[in-house]
Amino acid sequence: MTTGLALLGCGTVGSAVAEMLLAEKRHLQERSGQQLELRHILVRDKRKSRSRMVSKRLLTTNAEDILADPAVTIVVELMGGIEPARTLLLRSLAAGKHVVTANKHLLALHGAELFAAASKSGRCICFEASCGGAIPIIMALTRGLIANSIDRVIGIVNGTCNYILSQMSANGQSYAEALRGAQVEGFAEPDPTFDVSGIDSAHKLAILAALAFGMQVPFEKIAIRGINDLDDLDLKFSRELGYTCKLLAIAERTTGGISLRVAPTLIPAKSVLANVHGPFNAISVFGHAAGQTTYYGRGAGPKPTASAVIADIVEAAMGTASLLFANLPLLTKRTKGQFLPSNQIVARNYLRITALDSPGVMHQITGILGRRGISLSAIAQHESKAGAYVPLVITTHEAVEGDIAKAVVEIDRLKCTKGKTVRLNIIDPAA
Amino acid sequence: MTTGLALLGCGTVGSAVAEMLLAEKRHLQERSGQQLELRHILVRDKRKSRSRMVSKRLLTTNAEDILADPAVTIVVELMGGIEPARTLLLRSLAAGKHVVTANKHLLALHGAELFAAASKSGRCICFEASCGGAIPIIMALTRGLIANSIDRVIGIVNGTCNYILSQMSANGQSYAEALRGAQVEGFAEPDPTFDVSGIDSAHKLAILAALAFGMQVPFEKIAIRGINDLDDLDLKFSRELGYTCKLLAIAERTTGGISLRVAPTLIPAKSVLANVHGPFNAISVFGHAAGQTTYYGRGAGPKPTASAVIADIVEAAMGTASLLFANLPLLTKRTKGQFLPSNQIVARNYLRITALDSPGVMHQITGILGRRGISLSAIAQHESKAGAYVPLVITTHEAVEGDIAKAVVEIDRLKCTKGKTVRLNIIDPAA
Repeated sequence: MTTGLALLGCGTVGSAVAEMLLAEKRHLQERSGQQLELRHILVRDKRKSRSRMVSKRLLTTNAEDILADPAVTIVVELMGGIEPARTLLLRSLAAGKHVVTANKHLLALHGAELFAAASKSGRCICFEASCGGAIPIIMALTRGLIANSIDRVIGIVNGTCNYILSQMSANGQSYAEALRGAQVEGFAEPDPTFDVSGIDSAHKLAILAALAFGMQVPFEKIAIRGINDLDDLDLKFSRELGYTCKLLAIAERTTGGISLRVAPTLIPAKSVLANVHGPFNAISVFGHAAGQTTYYGRGAGPKPTASAVIADIVEAAMGTASLLFANLPLLTKRTKGQFLPSNQIVARNYLRITALDSPGVMHQITGILGRRGISLSAIAQHESKAGAYVPLVITTHEAVEGDIAKAVVEIDRLKCTKGKTVRLNIIDPAA
Repeated sequence: MTTGLALLGCGTVGSAVAEMLLAEKRHLQERSGQQLELRHILVRDKRKSRSRMVSKRLLTTNAEDILADPAVTIVVELMGGIEPARTLLLRSLAAGKHVVTANKHLLALHGAELFAAASKSGRCICFEASCGGAIPIIMALTRGLIANSIDRVIGIVNGTCNYILSQMSANGQSYAEALRGAQVEGFAEPDPTFDVSGIDSAHKLAILAALAFGMQVPFEKIAIRGINDLDDLDLKFSRELGYTCKLLAIAERTTGGISLRVAPTLIPAKSVLANVHGPFNAISVFGHAAGQTTYYGRGAGPKPTASAVIADIVEAAMGTASLLFANLPLLTKRTKGQFLPSNQIVARNYLRITALDSPGVMHQITGILGRRGISLSAIAQHESKAGAYVPLVITTHEAVEGDIAKAVVEIDRLKCTKGKTVRLNIIDPAA
């Protein structure tokens, strides 16, 4: 039996999906047992030049052509952004069509509304490509690890940031240099704001955390810090201390509630996540039975994303996705969560203080930390001329974020310090 | 609706599965939406002491109790070995029950027979726990990567061997010392033959390759070499050359056919697989669209294995596993494969020759290699007293295995060499 498909959007990912569906039709049928027929592609401009594989006959600028075609049972949304994607998907579900989407932005902000609409119409939403590109992480969380109570999810989920940080670490480039390089290589958009500010990672974290904990995750509960204010000096000092700096998206179950954050974070240089280089992504999930499992691969790019989109199309065509959607409370019956305010997170810290190299300075700084119950793990200060301002690097044992933040404000007010202290969390992903 | 289950076997994994099903019943229902009822456990001896969670009432020594119970719809086999597991699973399928099994040995040798029986009776066989413990690798190959033409699968799939090699590498222990340590730590069986000889890895490779290529994989097509003849000297030299030695299971599509091998192999020290330490497993899959994806986690142990077994039970209970089994040619309509004889594999090599440190020796050795068209990549010989036998380490560019083997025989016949040359393949898993 043939399954009719329509694509919404024909940008780089949409084109890759269309090409695979058309050029590799026989291969896909041999592998999956499914006969997939691409019937329409919604585009803004029919005259734009496209791959020769994509026949003009498939293109339409009118979504009604798709909604009104009873042979289309699966609508695949690859436009990105909130509107018109949201409205078109709600209308597709209401018209009895299953939905496949790679749109993390839409799911992070309007997932609850879309999933409720799918439940109501007895249809499913598949979204493997929304996180981690080719990596089947949604599948791992909804199926492979279903028996587990999940304690933590830690991910490198933005390839642009990981590429930039890898270049800064490996070649001692500044943030600005590494960003320019990433743009030249095509790993960063001309406007990289969503990526480097951590917002894209937070979108993915919202989706992953909701599945891991079976909870509604309001986007504003995520504390977000990007890589755009990182100094290569801190990558250098981290390395000397045996750490690697990665932009991590972390969801963690604590006694005070679920903690959610995206931030550049130091991890031991020998850990699996520290060895994820360039544009690759990796996500570690910690379950009470499985222990740590980690999923690694290309987090973006037309073909890796198309690989995940087509896997979803096959599951929707087979009917397995519908059964999953009808059965799994993780997807459609999420509980209200309790969330830990970010100033109550407990973590180790890296501090780089710019301090006068003179007697009594260390005493004042350690006094401030000590009075707040923050104990030191290591101190590093390179030799310098007495009387100059030098970087003083301190790592702490676990402390409450709010306390550290207050201590840093006090330290920065001292007469013997200059500028703003740099603060980064340190975690051990295998702990 | 409640799904009735029966376990065959109650060893360490069976007990862990039984305990999770009983002690975490409510949690499992909340996560999966399934009501699972454990009705019977087949054991050899009812009087043996077991976990308090496992009520005596559940135990039976008579398989007929299970086969005749219409409320049992899923039979979970955790006995291991070929018989009686094979017969009991064939009878379970004939009795209309779905099967979940962790038995790689049985699947590698009798998978085709079992899958045909399942097709005939319209039931499914789930086997996520047969490879990679908690890692959802079967799911990745049958679902997440379904759109891909798979070129290579490279796995560290035996935790015992990886633990031993990690100890030899990190602490300079001999094979015998590291094996003893692994036995003390519980990472190796009292009789470790299946693990250290590479046979267990080959069982898993047979299963993974069949899914990756949709082919029948006769077990005897796999070239198998274990870690039991490894010398710590070669781990040391590998490290100096920038490589790490891992027991790899490799399935590769080549123009001459599918090549299948298990062998200690050198990989670049910075690659993802080289950084899999201790008892962990990892499997890299290379697809034409997804590129490299890698799956990492605990490859053995009662709880990680139970995590995968219960994931399978949930899929069987939901009906998704049956749909997959009915639809996927990879599972039940495997083609006959063409296989590359192991002497035709093309690979880089590491050679450690024990040679006299005297003029003309290097000339003779390089002459032998050169005449067979084998070109050298690097040579390392540490300083020594002239006239003594010293280890001479040579790495080659890509060459045909049969040619290398013949060259090594010639080298070992030279008057200026002593003993047998050690030969290991070198691969780049990211290539």
